[in-house]
Amino acid sequence: MKRFLNSVIIIFIMYFQSGWSQETLIIEDFKPSSINQPDRQFPQVNSQRRVRASIAAPNANKVQLDIGGVKYDMRKDANGVWTGETNPQDEGFHYYQLNIDGASVPDPGSLYFYGAGRIGSGIEIQANDQEFYALKKVPHGLVSENIYFSKLTNSFRRCFIYTPPGYNENTKTSYPVLYLQHGSFEDETGWSSQGRANLILDNLIASKQATPMIIVMDNGYAYKPQNNESEDKKESQQSIFEDVLLTEVIPMIDAKFRTIPNREHRAIAGLSMGANQTMRIMMNNLDTFSYYGGFSGTANYPSTEPIDAATFLEGKYKDGNVLNKKIKLFWLGLGTKEPNPFPKSVGAFRTLLEQQGIKYNYYESPETAHEWLTWRRCLYQFASELF
Amino acid sequence: MKRFLNSVIIIFIMYFQSGWSQETLIIEDFKPSSINQPDRQFPQVNSQRRVRASIAAPNANKVQLDIGGVKYDMRKDANGVWTGETNPQDEGFHYYQLNIDGASVPDPGSLYFYGAGRIGSGIEIQANDQEFYALKKVPHGLVSENIYFSKLTNSFRRCFIYTPPGYNENTKTSYPVLYLQHGSFEDETGWSSQGRANLILDNLIASKQATPMIIVMDNGYAYKPQNNESEDKKESQQSIFEDVLLTEVIPMIDAKFRTIPNREHRAIAGLSMGANQTMRIMMNNLDTFSYYGGFSGTANYPSTEPIDAATFLEGKYKDGNVLNKKIKLFWLGLGTKEPNPFPKSVGAFRTLLEQQGIKYNYYESPETAHEWLTWRRCLYQFASELF
Repeated sequence: MKRFLNSVIIIFIMYFQSGWSQETLIIEDFKPSSINQPDRQFPQVNSQRRVRASIAAPNANKVQLDIGGVKYDMRKDANGVWTGETNPQDEGFHYYQLNIDGASVPDPGSLYFYGAGRIGSGIEIQANDQEFYALKKVPHGLVSENIYFSKLTNSFRRCFIYTPPGYNENTKTSYPVLYLQHGSFEDETGWSSQGRANLILDNLIASKQATPMIIVMDNGYAYKPQNNESEDKKESQQSIFEDVLLTEVIPMIDAKFRTIPNREHRAIAGLSMGANQTMRIMMNNLDTFSYYGGFSGTANYPSTEPIDAATFLEGKYKDGNVLNKKIKLFWLGLGTKEPNPFPKSVGAFRTLLEQQGIKYNYYESPETAHEWLTWRRCLYQFASELF
Repeated sequence: MKRFLNSVIIIFIMYFQSGWSQETLIIEDFKPSSINQPDRQFPQVNSQRRVRASIAAPNANKVQLDIGGVKYDMRKDANGVWTGETNPQDEGFHYYQLNIDGASVPDPGSLYFYGAGRIGSGIEIQANDQEFYALKKVPHGLVSENIYFSKLTNSFRRCFIYTPPGYNENTKTSYPVLYLQHGSFEDETGWSSQGRANLILDNLIASKQATPMIIVMDNGYAYKPQNNESEDKKESQQSIFEDVLLTEVIPMIDAKFRTIPNREHRAIAGLSMGANQTMRIMMNNLDTFSYYGGFSGTANYPSTEPIDAATFLEGKYKDGNVLNKKIKLFWLGLGTKEPNPFPKSVGAFRTLLEQQGIKYNYYESPETAHEWLTWRRCLYQFASELF
């Protein structure tokens, strides 16, 4: 016990948050987050999975650390530096921000990521299985930014393309392609940044657990050009992403990269909003894709009601036998801590599949919510079953 | 005049900054900056090249807009939103930040860029010649992120590689390579982000003003691994970037990309610290490179003293005749508004070249300081003279 007390400094702090108070043990083994800016000491994470942020704001009245829907008050020291800790967080990646006298801003210590409709801070809580998305001494693929002009949207758009290790050297080899979509209020940067898609595939390919493949990550928001700019155009306009993907992106990728351009070598997957989108695209284009992955989402979202196979998606799930022949892999994944309506909505969809006798694989990510560790794990599992 | 008054709202504001006061005319034709986050209305820029920032900080005591070494006080309205304008800024790209009650933070409205040793806000002041770096309906090259493990530094490093339009389709064609370096407190992201290197080359190649080329942008900070982590290792350790570039990066690029791997088809250039670094690397490796570009920097920096050809860089500039035969292009560029010691330091170096009879091209960027518009223009001019 003495040894324990010697090696670990224990601080008791009284927290007064949201009307409740709690005596909180904080273990002083904080280390800088693995996704901090170069040479930045804060934010930090400890073995309890608490986050500690710190910022100099000598003239501020109140500074808070805003993460997971909770604002934690920070304390000011004699030098005007504010510091504060959170309750234990789930393993994996989380968006967060600081609030300085009412202004919500990125933490100057962290790297930044696009999510929740803005570029903001992220923190990495070490996960028990983090090796599968770690940067390792294995051959690395390239992630390429590809700018293109879309006639359908009358705008410049961008996708990122992962080419596997060896792509540039093995110039006689052609590769299968996975089209991989982000969630709502995220963009084409998500999967290769906080999603670690490139590192996950590098590791899977190095250990021969996955077939080398190209991954295309485009932006799921695509709308017809409008003459009158509406304030809320993303909500009011109907998505034409399916048209953009099928008639602009796929032909461009097949022309520019050494793909195997047929349905047997083409997969489509997405997370949350992207799962919903890509499930619809999959079912409308079974001659284009033969593998589907839905991470934390299905096309019946947000409904949790029983699904009528005769009418849902114009009856596309009516004939299980035909689908079982046509679809090589129908894959669904979900975190065990996801909030409603995800579990019940995905559950209703699984019931439909079972009623129709449609084969599918189902994966549950332990102890994760509607966040990126769920989707990293989904990609890891899904990619290992492809092609 | 009445029409003018009707169409333009004029506000007179008394500024009290740095001990002086000035009555300032502000023309109300502000538009969102071209490098804002999606759908963000602020920051804005007007026709006078003033920046206007705005942020909700209802409980703050003081909010400032910090740009170009000046902190401009912002004003709070009844809703707790702070707004403020700057004096007219130079054309081009500038780093800036907000200061909220003493905390320096990124503006939540802008895109973010690595510079000044941190990821922070940037603003784009439209330039009279901005077409040369604009995103246009021309064929676009790819910018690829390449992660590699460096044995020399015992760390993972990263470079970005621009491959020109047609690279992926014209699989029989090999290309010359430009190695292009960032400045101090910047990194390998700078040239393809705020530097617009990819768009500049896309435009030059589309108008047949430049030979299609590959551009490699690596990180100029490289040090031997140390057992004892010093606090200030970047200052205290000697750079081994030349070794990393020559023995790790160039062989990797020549193996992975379709390069023409000889000195006649290899150029090296950099800005500021990168100009200094690459000039030394060039002179040490005339069998590897035959084109050099120094943007806002030379190897005698920060000295402004006359240079002794017998001793400077171990006498490498002694024999002008040999250098004139060996070097295909020696190119220097500088902004007309650069602060000391740049003009005098580059001036002393030009005197050396002239004394030694060494041929070189010299370009001055009108009305720009030690900032990215100078370097975008330098790259534009320099790349058009390569290969």
